[in-house]
Amino acid sequence: MCELLGMECNTPTDIVFSFTGFARRGGHTGPHADGWGLAFYEGRAARVFLDPRPCAASPLAAFLRQQPIKTELAIAHIRKRTCGPVGVANTHPFARELWGRSWVFAHNGTVTGAKQLPPGRFQPIGETDSEHAFCHLLNTLAETFGSTAPPEPELATAIALAGSELSRFGVFNFILGDGERLFARCDTKLSYVIRQAPFGRATLADEDISVDFAQVTDPGDRVAVVATTPLTRDETWVPGDPGVLWVFRHGALVAELLSPVLHAPVAHPTHAHAP
Amino acid sequence: MCELLGMECNTPTDIVFSFTGFARRGGHTGPHADGWGLAFYEGRAARVFLDPRPCAASPLAAFLRQQPIKTELAIAHIRKRTCGPVGVANTHPFARELWGRSWVFAHNGTVTGAKQLPPGRFQPIGETDSEHAFCHLLNTLAETFGSTAPPEPELATAIALAGSELSRFGVFNFILGDGERLFARCDTKLSYVIRQAPFGRATLADEDISVDFAQVTDPGDRVAVVATTPLTRDETWVPGDPGVLWVFRHGALVAELLSPVLHAPVAHPTHAHAP
Repeated sequence: MCELLGMECNTPTDIVFSFTGFARRGGHTGPHADGWGLAFYEGRAARVFLDPRPCAASPLAAFLRQQPIKTELAIAHIRKRTCGPVGVANTHPFARELWGRSWVFAHNGTVTGAKQLPPGRFQPIGETDSEHAFCHLLNTLAETFGSTAPPEPELATAIALAGSELSRFGVFNFILGDGERLFARCDTKLSYVIRQAPFGRATLADEDISVDFAQVTDPGDRVAVVATTPLTRDETWVPGDPGVLWVFRHGALVAELLSPVLHAPVAHPTHAHAP
Repeated sequence: MCELLGMECNTPTDIVFSFTGFARRGGHTGPHADGWGLAFYEGRAARVFLDPRPCAASPLAAFLRQQPIKTELAIAHIRKRTCGPVGVANTHPFARELWGRSWVFAHNGTVTGAKQLPPGRFQPIGETDSEHAFCHLLNTLAETFGSTAPPEPELATAIALAGSELSRFGVFNFILGDGERLFARCDTKLSYVIRQAPFGRATLADEDISVDFAQVTDPGDRVAVVATTPLTRDETWVPGDPGVLWVFRHGALVAELLSPVLHAPVAHPTHAHAP
């Protein structure tokens, strides 16, 4: 299984603290050694850094920790491959343009059957089930709404329904950004935390590093962080119910939609990272 | 005006030598200080590194020179903006997926009128005339050939004609990759060199750095390099005729198509980089 990390804020924020703990799971404290990626939005555009090597030993990951890029929306992924060989084409997050904005997607789970879905305007470049599912999701949005983005409620509903539909193929936890919002679907495991005033201290679950957010924030700052499993030990993370789609905008949870999980029940994973 | 650099090879090759001279033009020996980008293909997928800061002073550019990534196809651009503010969304090269492969595009020139073209399935994320023209080119390919890539001759002809059509808006030098080939259109200035056995020494035009390719290559290696102006002083660069489209595959020039330049004659630029 892979690890997901998303951050959505009301002010440009650097992701170094969260990414540091997350990066350790890529081949160090975790088994996710088959590549990693990190996307930073600037407005509707995204820069996506991909590396098919283990994150914990990646010079590019070290560089990004040293050269923090502030952003209002970031999406990261560490891969433990189940479908498709190690390589750039199979490294999350995946990105496509729709309605004049970058859509960036990362998946946790396995939906092998999604590879049999009919092709549409968006086609996978690599071999993963995840990219196939992402293309199907965007094909559904493009077919439903045509050439212009719909208002947020319709958009969120369509994403929740497409997520539910794809869950018939298996576990489908994902995070998805469009430059304005972060959509996050919990199938089996996903949690979020909102960091806002009064800010306190947080300590990484994977490493003995802590930060006092009061020292590095302004009182009006608000940051939503979503991760497969909580990244810190001393913050209150909210676990998702199966089938929930969260929508984060300006660092706040602005919508929560519940749609059915269609796959058979999954035995609860028991590994070192379970919360 | 911007600077273009493309490399297409028959074996994975690092672009550090060419990129070093090229990078100096971004705010150091040249006036192109409004951002830069470098795309590396791995098969049909591309990794695109973008930085809106001057290339000559960019930590990311320095990192990429230190951590050479070998590739069979690379596309680089340094921006001197004429259209759209400095920012990620307006930084070349631009990338889109079509037919299950990444298409990567960089432009030199100004085609402001292309911003008035009707929108299609590919829409610009930023404000540049260049990205508008790229989207129009891909819309034309998608409309002409549907959901499957055509054979190379038809594809090259369609790209040459679309390039000619877009040249009615102004100067349209570009390089375009699809993971298998490098297409390069000369409007006012573009040159290429093929490096192959017997390999010799080459010295950068912008810096007192030389390399003996015989020391770093195998006899069967073949590398095509395309640039706005020749990057080295002791190699034989072939300048393009106005309206020519070159197609490079496996490090060789495999096709050369001539189509009309439709804009009014342009006064020949006279600046430090003219060959």
